[in-house]
Amino acid sequence: MNQVRITDPFWKGKQEFVRTAVIPYQWDALNDQVPGAAPSYCIRNFKLAAEKIQGKTKIKYPIPRDKWEFLPKDSEKDSFHGFIFQDTDVYKWIEAVGYSLANHPDEKLEALADSAIELICKAQLENGYLDTLYAINDPDKVFTDLRDKHELYCFGHLCEGAIAYYHATKKRKLLDATERFADFIYDWFVKEDRKGYPGHEIAEMALMKLYEETGKDKYLTLCKYFVDHRGERPYYYDLERGEEPSKDLKYQYQQAHLPVREQKEAVGHAVRAVYLYSGMADLARVTGDEGLRLACRELFEDITRKKMYVTGAIGSTHMGEAFTSAFDLPNDMAYAETCASIGLIFFAHRMLRLSVKQEYGDVLERALYNTVLSGMAADGKSFFYVNPLEVDPDRVHGDERMNFVKTVRQKWFGCACCPPNISRLLSGLGDYLTTSGEEELFLHLLIGADMDTDFGKISVEESLFEDGGLSIQISPKKAFTFYLRVPAWVDQAQVLCGETKDSNYPNYLAFEIKEDTVLSLKFTFGPRLIQADPRVSENIGKVAVTYGPFVYCLEEADNGKHLWELAIDPSTTWKFSGNNLIANGYRLQESPTEALYSPYEKPHFQATKLTFVPYHAWGNRGEGEMRVYLSAR
Amino acid sequence: MNQVRITDPFWKGKQEFVRTAVIPYQWDALNDQVPGAAPSYCIRNFKLAAEKIQGKTKIKYPIPRDKWEFLPKDSEKDSFHGFIFQDTDVYKWIEAVGYSLANHPDEKLEALADSAIELICKAQLENGYLDTLYAINDPDKVFTDLRDKHELYCFGHLCEGAIAYYHATKKRKLLDATERFADFIYDWFVKEDRKGYPGHEIAEMALMKLYEETGKDKYLTLCKYFVDHRGERPYYYDLERGEEPSKDLKYQYQQAHLPVREQKEAVGHAVRAVYLYSGMADLARVTGDEGLRLACRELFEDITRKKMYVTGAIGSTHMGEAFTSAFDLPNDMAYAETCASIGLIFFAHRMLRLSVKQEYGDVLERALYNTVLSGMAADGKSFFYVNPLEVDPDRVHGDERMNFVKTVRQKWFGCACCPPNISRLLSGLGDYLTTSGEEELFLHLLIGADMDTDFGKISVEESLFEDGGLSIQISPKKAFTFYLRVPAWVDQAQVLCGETKDSNYPNYLAFEIKEDTVLSLKFTFGPRLIQADPRVSENIGKVAVTYGPFVYCLEEADNGKHLWELAIDPSTTWKFSGNNLIANGYRLQESPTEALYSPYEKPHFQATKLTFVPYHAWGNRGEGEMRVYLSAR
Repeated sequence: MNQVRITDPFWKGKQEFVRTAVIPYQWDALNDQVPGAAPSYCIRNFKLAAEKIQGKTKIKYPIPRDKWEFLPKDSEKDSFHGFIFQDTDVYKWIEAVGYSLANHPDEKLEALADSAIELICKAQLENGYLDTLYAINDPDKVFTDLRDKHELYCFGHLCEGAIAYYHATKKRKLLDATERFADFIYDWFVKEDRKGYPGHEIAEMALMKLYEETGKDKYLTLCKYFVDHRGERPYYYDLERGEEPSKDLKYQYQQAHLPVREQKEAVGHAVRAVYLYSGMADLARVTGDEGLRLACRELFEDITRKKMYVTGAIGSTHMGEAFTSAFDLPNDMAYAETCASIGLIFFAHRMLRLSVKQEYGDVLERALYNTVLSGMAADGKSFFYVNPLEVDPDRVHGDERMNFVKTVRQKWFGCACCPPNISRLLSGLGDYLTTSGEEELFLHLLIGADMDTDFGKISVEESLFEDGGLSIQISPKKAFTFYLRVPAWVDQAQVLCGETKDSNYPNYLAFEIKEDTVLSLKFTFGPRLIQADPRVSENIGKVAVTYGPFVYCLEEADNGKHLWELAIDPSTTWKFSGNNLIANGYRLQESPTEALYSPYEKPHFQATKLTFVPYHAWGNRGEGEMRVYLSAR
Repeated sequence: MNQVRITDPFWKGKQEFVRTAVIPYQWDALNDQVPGAAPSYCIRNFKLAAEKIQGKTKIKYPIPRDKWEFLPKDSEKDSFHGFIFQDTDVYKWIEAVGYSLANHPDEKLEALADSAIELICKAQLENGYLDTLYAINDPDKVFTDLRDKHELYCFGHLCEGAIAYYHATKKRKLLDATERFADFIYDWFVKEDRKGYPGHEIAEMALMKLYEETGKDKYLTLCKYFVDHRGERPYYYDLERGEEPSKDLKYQYQQAHLPVREQKEAVGHAVRAVYLYSGMADLARVTGDEGLRLACRELFEDITRKKMYVTGAIGSTHMGEAFTSAFDLPNDMAYAETCASIGLIFFAHRMLRLSVKQEYGDVLERALYNTVLSGMAADGKSFFYVNPLEVDPDRVHGDERMNFVKTVRQKWFGCACCPPNISRLLSGLGDYLTTSGEEELFLHLLIGADMDTDFGKISVEESLFEDGGLSIQISPKKAFTFYLRVPAWVDQAQVLCGETKDSNYPNYLAFEIKEDTVLSLKFTFGPRLIQADPRVSENIGKVAVTYGPFVYCLEEADNGKHLWELAIDPSTTWKFSGNNLIANGYRLQESPTEALYSPYEKPHFQATKLTFVPYHAWGNRGEGEMRVYLSAR
């Protein structure tokens, strides 16, 4: 693993927010110390599990099917409380802490994390099993409801947290506990050949990480076991419930409707989907499984060519937090969960490791610079779970079915997956900048950073948004080819200093590195109007404004109410104003009339200036309308 | 009351469908004789109630709050089954039968209705109370859950059915039973001054009908009692549940958030709303209550100027079947319930009785010729509950949250309000053609009919859609002024035969009638492009095609897939082809590319012919895309 320190002020600032605001807030949240927020019960459950294991109480409690949340009002005092996956709150926190400590040592924070790890390990059963829901309520029932109880999901997050923490601190305690749990899972499923697989995926990608970290084949075997049995007939989920094996396709929600190599379309819960595909991509890379590689490519293309918003958001509908049909991308009713875009980044990065392609990097950037950043407020203190491309507060408040859309970022969420996910992604951003081959290193993201890699030290500085500049200093340990991704948004890439050689990868510049080298480049790019495929019925006749990897939007604060009455002149010149863009456009003249419907008249437009702000920065000035797409005329 | 026989072939045909297809089907449905349809339990409940009253069983069963449906699987065998309002199924059937018999005597049908009435009367308690839910499960609990149990709603439909049946047959049995129940309700509420009012309105308008039919003041008093107490603080609904009186506005869903005279905006459940407003309009007319009249006008204008689709549909959201904010009229996610448009017709007609205005007639026509007609298939055998203005089957099937939209009409519905509501409206259509004053008769709808009125016989013939012709023969019993509404869709009204006089009502032609008179008119009108108020964000840059009172739409069957890629030339000439309209337009050329997002290019359009079908006729050729609004370019 490379050591990467982000130096880019923009991204470093985001990491600082995570370190100084999000991680402490998150700690309070999982300790139920945030006034006004729904309690997490996370630490409370670990404490209770530890007590139970020490034999202080022995009473068992039911863990009914189709129950996702255990509220104190209908649970016993010494039973599990909260959502069934609440253990992950602390695992994600530890992961973010791990990445943060790697960037920025902090003794107090490390001590706090050590104490949390101490507690977690006390909640582990003798046999290695570790999940507070079952440890507290009934250890005899573990893994009897794979479809809906999230034990393997919790395991996956434990794994990711343990590895990140180990990297930062070299402390093995949590990693050892993780391996013991992984060994238990291996015995349970592979040895006993139970043919089950996770209801909520993530264990697959986590096991690949654990395998690559430890080199232990059994974790690779376990991952492959889960991947291979998914979607087999008769369905495991039918069998575990004692239900008649269903004849029809079922379990799309969990991507378990078909064997994974036969899956061509992304379906069901979007986060689960991209977590699974990420694990599949890792497995394909390590095993060279061609069927799996093809499935990954088809699924990636299905998502990014048919089911992805221009902001890199995925999962159009809040019902089942799911993918819908191809080209169904409603702007106002978009679900577009922050976590799903984070998962898409995982997937895109793994596709880059599998085979280097400009488009994978483009997708990664699209999700990162827009939906993921939009998920956190400019001050790091509030969050979006849902990321629509169009908001009219009057409509949101007037229609109960839009309740899932929030017009301003929220402090926290009952199901608090997104804020911790943002914090672990941003803290660990360094991992996404590069991939490498035998004698090749690929720089995919144009973000200032100091990197210590197997090939040597690399230092990237960018002034892209000032003068298009990018400079890279390389001190190699050995000879290698340095590849630099030229994103699709670049009109022209000029090499000012350095010598390119023929590239094996389209849209990647190649440099032979044998000695200390300084590369200097100038990328020419400007604001662009982007159109969606005409099969996206919502956006016919409309365009979105982009500048580099950033999507822009209109806000009421700059452009007044009724943003839908604005149109842009496609031949506009552009002005820059801080981070904003100013363009020439038109405003439809409203002719006041009492009639809701009247005979058509040629519309009158008045020239006006339009102010666009980066999409990720919207909603930082109170409530108001926002809109990404607008008419071109 | 006037006697009206519809002679217009188009409308007579619809009435015939109701008589020959819908009414028999409905009878089977309420007798649980429709294979594959969810049982109604309606007749079953009346039989059981009759048995209970005869003392065959005496066991009581609970009627829990927040329970709307009693399924056999979780109910005792001899307890109430089905939705709590299931009694109305037979009442609406009797109402439709009554209107149908008036148009078309049918001994067998009448005998069947008599037998149903016999049964209903057996289910009436000694004290006059009549509702099978309480009669069966617990007669001691009547009227203890006004908010959610629909006893007064059932009463309202009983009333409407009884009056229609009495008019057709002069048989008083059901009307007598109704009066006994009304007397019980009067004693319960007015005498005891309980200050309650219906949760689901309709009793208000039904009581006004009963008052005007019987001349008994107590029914007027009871109606006024319900209207006046609605929205009073503390809220009755809080009190009846023993809840703390709420300080905030509550009960918008039931239009009980404010005293009715303070209500300026239509809110909550759309059907309930327009039923209430209809009752209020009748009460205002009869009592001359100015505050009530103003409230009715404001509410009517709020609906029709801010919350009504071009098809006369109302209630944008399926959540709570409710109104949303002003100008929030999504085309694809429209709820637009058939029953709500029927209620809007009730309301508009009552506004016409309150004060004659062209706009009320326009709204009535808009709802009748479009949403209501669309509710029933061309063969009268299947129905829409939900009437969107845009359907893309791929999107509907791909997104669970669009499950409420049906792409083809359904045979029947579990909550079967719409088909019987269509059948009673169409059967009773004659009632909506005219209103009258002391010495004035107003013809609002231009539908061929023979009418026997207090002023004499009037015969209307129209050939509007062939040659714009309208001819009216009048044989007066006494001198009166005949007013003829000129709809807003008429460009020019020419009187070929007859002499107009100065009209007191804008857009109504006035004729002094003293002797046998023949009026002959020619209305000039053609297809029109209609635009929505620009505050309807959905429809910016788009138009709808109308011709006379009919809204038109594009269907995939005529225009191919991807209807959103079509645009109309606003200066098009028009061709008629049967009931269809052909216009000049354009189709966006799709340039196939793998990229979902690409730099903007000026779009290319190819000239094409567009075929429009009347909105009410859509969906009669299998599943396919449909769209009312399209771009103008």
